[in-house]
Amino acid sequence: MKYDKFFSDDVASFMRSPVREIFKKVDLASIYSFAGGYPDAATFPIDDIRRISAEVLEKYGAKALQYGATQGVPELRAVIAKRYGVPVENVQITTSSQQGIDVCTRVLVNPGDVVLTTAPTYLGALQSFKSYRADIRTIGDYDFSKAPKFCYVIPDFQNPSGETMTLEERKKLVALARERDFLIVEDSPYRELRYSGEPVPTIYSLAPERTLFLGSFSKVFAPGFRLGWILGAPELLDQIYVCKQSLDLCPPVFDQYIAAEFMGGGALDANLQKSIALYRAKRDKMLGLLEQYMPAGVSWTRPEGGLFLFVTLPEGFDTVALYDRALSAGVAYVAGSFFYPDGSHRNTMRVNFSFLDASRMEAGVKLLAEVIGQ
Amino acid sequence: MKYDKFFSDDVASFMRSPVREIFKKVDLASIYSFAGGYPDAATFPIDDIRRISAEVLEKYGAKALQYGATQGVPELRAVIAKRYGVPVENVQITTSSQQGIDVCTRVLVNPGDVVLTTAPTYLGALQSFKSYRADIRTIGDYDFSKAPKFCYVIPDFQNPSGETMTLEERKKLVALARERDFLIVEDSPYRELRYSGEPVPTIYSLAPERTLFLGSFSKVFAPGFRLGWILGAPELLDQIYVCKQSLDLCPPVFDQYIAAEFMGGGALDANLQKSIALYRAKRDKMLGLLEQYMPAGVSWTRPEGGLFLFVTLPEGFDTVALYDRALSAGVAYVAGSFFYPDGSHRNTMRVNFSFLDASRMEAGVKLLAEVIGQ
Repeated sequence: MKYDKFFSDDVASFMRSPVREIFKKVDLASIYSFAGGYPDAATFPIDDIRRISAEVLEKYGAKALQYGATQGVPELRAVIAKRYGVPVENVQITTSSQQGIDVCTRVLVNPGDVVLTTAPTYLGALQSFKSYRADIRTIGDYDFSKAPKFCYVIPDFQNPSGETMTLEERKKLVALARERDFLIVEDSPYRELRYSGEPVPTIYSLAPERTLFLGSFSKVFAPGFRLGWILGAPELLDQIYVCKQSLDLCPPVFDQYIAAEFMGGGALDANLQKSIALYRAKRDKMLGLLEQYMPAGVSWTRPEGGLFLFVTLPEGFDTVALYDRALSAGVAYVAGSFFYPDGSHRNTMRVNFSFLDASRMEAGVKLLAEVIGQ
Repeated sequence: MKYDKFFSDDVASFMRSPVREIFKKVDLASIYSFAGGYPDAATFPIDDIRRISAEVLEKYGAKALQYGATQGVPELRAVIAKRYGVPVENVQITTSSQQGIDVCTRVLVNPGDVVLTTAPTYLGALQSFKSYRADIRTIGDYDFSKAPKFCYVIPDFQNPSGETMTLEERKKLVALARERDFLIVEDSPYRELRYSGEPVPTIYSLAPERTLFLGSFSKVFAPGFRLGWILGAPELLDQIYVCKQSLDLCPPVFDQYIAAEFMGGGALDANLQKSIALYRAKRDKMLGLLEQYMPAGVSWTRPEGGLFLFVTLPEGFDTVALYDRALSAGVAYVAGSFFYPDGSHRNTMRVNFSFLDASRMEAGVKLLAEVIGQ
């Protein structure tokens, strides 16, 4: 039976995540993977989760297992509202911050609408924008011939570049958004993972009236919980709330209570300090290894936080073509061109430094340097 | 600041769930609610969940907290494949069966495409179809002037009617789908909750090549887990898989492992037997109470399973208008017209019999009968 005629027009614009396709083909444990955005499993607070899971069932009983409010359980919304100093009405819980990206796009974008991004930018956001057939434009190059719906940015330790927007750059973006009248979607999964330098105010704090701020538990708690949040104007969140009713009714309730206890009871901050120390050492290790092993002509970013750095090979290299050779050698990365809306910059790659432990990281960088050097 | 200009065209078609709006306004515990589709909290296997949560962390460790495969964790897919006797390739885990409805619609429906339903039908499905601007038609009345994309049915203990399609009706639908070449979305959250009569084969078993079967853990485990599954042809599931990457990357992983142990280890079937006994008694109680208290001229369905029955008042009654009076009196239902794509049948109401315990059920039916009698 042929199914093509049944598919919606959106389907032709669906983009497969090369990262997820890699993980379908190879067993992560069998290679040195710099490909995913996986946290180090050592940061997962297993003992806290064991304890808190039992406490939640004791404290909330059946309530933790029943349907919950579409906006999220009040206890979790309250903890997040307090953390950011915003009213509870400005907080919507999402079933992952990827859902945050998806639902914002769904509520804001018609096919052909302009969405501005930086280039490179997060692959999962590009997937979502493309799936709604947005006209994706790079903010620096755009002529504003048509009003954009929003600009999508990851201002802290960007995925994939590792770079952080300065306060001046953030203020400039806000001024432009106000002048040209577009919204800003501030995706902020890594903000709390800062290893050096000083925190820069969020864009949301500079322009709360026109920013949708996306937070995530994936990098500071455990990605297996699939929980995130949106901060934004109640008028925007109201439509997101109605949309979310038909998406999945409500976020996972048991998980939300566990996350609320973890964040509200102080365990998150304690765990975060340990994660930061671990990742700082890993970042420094990675920078040292690149220095030690990479051939001349290869350069890379020096992130102050997050999980990634971005490597640029000399002009003429093609990391997409190189990829199968690397995988055969036992090392994986994500080609940088996947993060460019136009597929350019084929001499770049994203390198994750959070997942592998120090000894495997060294073996992996050596292998990667050999593949590049050949 | 005005936000209207930023919203996508879909937003104008969003429909607020009257059920969820009720729960925003009133505290469930303060009224006699026949409104929701909430399972009885007594059916939640709290002790199993406490034990299995700890076991999962022991057995899988960090794997239960890390990102997982978009299709679902292999352990849960395998348990579900075995239960239905289908290959694992035919199983996609969803973050709730509501997401199953949403993602099937997203992948299949363009604005203006025809989706067939029965009338009445599940409100959350209507919300999803409307949000994608489908042309919703009633299957019995449709002239097939345009090929429909799919027909959505809940063949077992339908929400809201409580009715079950006979084998002949299922075969007739399959024959029509083959003749007119449309797909069938078989939504089946209640199938395992049968209190009397004999099981009828699923539509999926009659036409696996053109049916997407939606299963749910919400009524046989705990709705707070937000887990469901889709059975279908791998060619259809492949596009659903790609779409799901940008929706939320993967279903909640910790929850999936708990559900896999619960279903695979036999605890689900043991719990199901207890739930069936409880709900059978509740259904019988509800039928007796309606007989005892309802004024003459009121009729209702006699479901063989599920959570709902459908009440019809004499012509001229308007359950939407009656609703505020009922709520003031302390009793809630959902007006039946919300389940009709055209908003007709204003003399009907959906009555849930799973949520309230026996004594509160009696007080609630008495109140409801008084409100109707006035």
